[in-house]
Amino acid sequence: MATTKLDAILNPGRMLADGVPFQDYDAARRLDDASQWFGFWTKTAERYEELGERALGLGHLVSAGELLWQASLSFHYAQFLWFHEPELRESGQNSKAALYRRASPYLVTAAERVDLSFGDASIPAYLRLPPGAGPHPCVVLIGGLESTKEESLLFENMCLQRGLATFAFDGPGQGEMFFDVKIQSDFERYTSAVIDYLETRPELDSRRLGVLGRSLGGHYALRSAAVDHRVQVCVAWGAFVDMSDWEGMPPHVHDGFAYLTGANTQAEAAEILQEALNIGDLIGAIECPTYILQGAHDRIFSTHQTTLLASAIAGKENFQLRVEPDGDHCCHNMAHIVRPRMADWLIERLRK
Amino acid sequence: MATTKLDAILNPGRMLADGVPFQDYDAARRLDDASQWFGFWTKTAERYEELGERALGLGHLVSAGELLWQASLSFHYAQFLWFHEPELRESGQNSKAALYRRASPYLVTAAERVDLSFGDASIPAYLRLPPGAGPHPCVVLIGGLESTKEESLLFENMCLQRGLATFAFDGPGQGEMFFDVKIQSDFERYTSAVIDYLETRPELDSRRLGVLGRSLGGHYALRSAAVDHRVQVCVAWGAFVDMSDWEGMPPHVHDGFAYLTGANTQAEAAEILQEALNIGDLIGAIECPTYILQGAHDRIFSTHQTTLLASAIAGKENFQLRVEPDGDHCCHNMAHIVRPRMADWLIERLRK
Repeated sequence: MATTKLDAILNPGRMLADGVPFQDYDAARRLDDASQWFGFWTKTAERYEELGERALGLGHLVSAGELLWQASLSFHYAQFLWFHEPELRESGQNSKAALYRRASPYLVTAAERVDLSFGDASIPAYLRLPPGAGPHPCVVLIGGLESTKEESLLFENMCLQRGLATFAFDGPGQGEMFFDVKIQSDFERYTSAVIDYLETRPELDSRRLGVLGRSLGGHYALRSAAVDHRVQVCVAWGAFVDMSDWEGMPPHVHDGFAYLTGANTQAEAAEILQEALNIGDLIGAIECPTYILQGAHDRIFSTHQTTLLASAIAGKENFQLRVEPDGDHCCHNMAHIVRPRMADWLIERLRK
Repeated sequence: MATTKLDAILNPGRMLADGVPFQDYDAARRLDDASQWFGFWTKTAERYEELGERALGLGHLVSAGELLWQASLSFHYAQFLWFHEPELRESGQNSKAALYRRASPYLVTAAERVDLSFGDASIPAYLRLPPGAGPHPCVVLIGGLESTKEESLLFENMCLQRGLATFAFDGPGQGEMFFDVKIQSDFERYTSAVIDYLETRPELDSRRLGVLGRSLGGHYALRSAAVDHRVQVCVAWGAFVDMSDWEGMPPHVHDGFAYLTGANTQAEAAEILQEALNIGDLIGAIECPTYILQGAHDRIFSTHQTTLLASAIAGKENFQLRVEPDGDHCCHNMAHIVRPRMADWLIERLRK
């Protein structure tokens, strides 16, 4: 990271669509170099935290929720690619999770913290319910390589506005769970544990459950839908079939994968990933309506992966593969167009 | 405008905080010169309109509302400073108003169109109600020189989230009303007509009414609160006392004032404005809690005006004057900080 150029980590499409204020993005853009990145976002986070606590003290609960969420989001960006200093990264990750948790009761609508025990670990998650009488349909949200359950608030709001509950969780290698479980080959078991839980919630209609995953999460969403047929609809917001393009991925993605597998070297990580992340034989088992969104200008997942996806689903009527000619990774550069569309696609199929 | 530099009209703080997607702002920033401005935003608007109508056809009502609102907002920016080609400006203004009206039933929450007859003209407005049982407190929103009732959606959302209904209207010289009534000296009569109407709405608690005005609207809000004591709280989101600083205002502000007074020359406009816009003798009559927000770097309203305001309210306990050291005009460059704060300030005083 110290040698990374700022341009390589600045991603205005993603950052702004996920809730970073323009002013913060703009200030980060003007940093002298990437070595100032962690410090800048930490300071930004601390300022929001202070404002959030002050708002809480004054009884301004809506503002408190938003400011503490802003603080969490700033800590997210502080640490998201800071793999070369693991202690700093971990402290940033912990602050991010703690601040989101503190914000959660005050968000509009509130996010209910849920911890599901699963073997020796527990799955941390947040449930949010739309207004009105239930039982509601629900979409399970899966993060990516360094994105977690704390970053989907604005996309969740789009779902909630359309009558769709949201359940965002950290699986293996992600967010709070990373400390207990690294990236491994059985992500779908965690999704199934989540669905077991959702079936117990009277506010939700367990016959109307969807899964949406973003980036690496898109891969996990497809895997989950293939194995657990309680998933009624599936969206892969960016996806890949396998790790055959490992060599061509950008350095910070290599760093991230190595870190999140817990491997000592990138070569070891590559080996783990080739084994753990391959859904070539599984896609055909997906029976539910499935929407896959790719950007033609994705520099992380190659066009080769889009070709593999297209060939795996060829002739299957339950799949829609949409490749946006102008889209980048996850089409973040056209978030305002593609995100509401995914929410519409989900609710159209999960509405009674 | 044809000779205006792009930098002079690009206002990322305002544009993004009012809802322009970053991608559109960024594309506008890259235009060759300002002569392309109107065409760029018109084309952008038409694209959103097409997407909005398509969403409507598919029954995606939330998306339809947002996309049609985006179309309206793009038309707003197409025409907002396009005073040198009045026919184009008028057609842009009409398209903006029509598209917002088309979006209004689908907004979350819906905006109810209201037309209040007033003399020979009628006052066009939108009412939005917060969730939950009423009667609700309500804030009357007043636009500025070229801002209108269609641009406050995101600020309204902040109010609604806090339990505060919103009523945004066009007064003399503004938006749809400009065609019938130009800028004149009796804006407060229009505010009072609005309050007469709000008193008839059973969903609203007419003992808990506030007024908030932005930019030139801040001046109008103070004027309204001074004359009509049914106003229980007042926020001036940027304000001035009089037009004694006319000479120092930027050229596009001169153009705007000349256009919106209906004057033939800037000299004639200046004369009308000196007479029409002066609250020096009125401020002392304001009895309700009043919050005035100024930016120390305001290049439209001078620091001299802030000094006049400070001196007019000196020693009066019902006033708070906050001057943000880093703020520009209306503190748009720190919208994410100051806007929620104004909404908090209002609801704190209008909550039961």
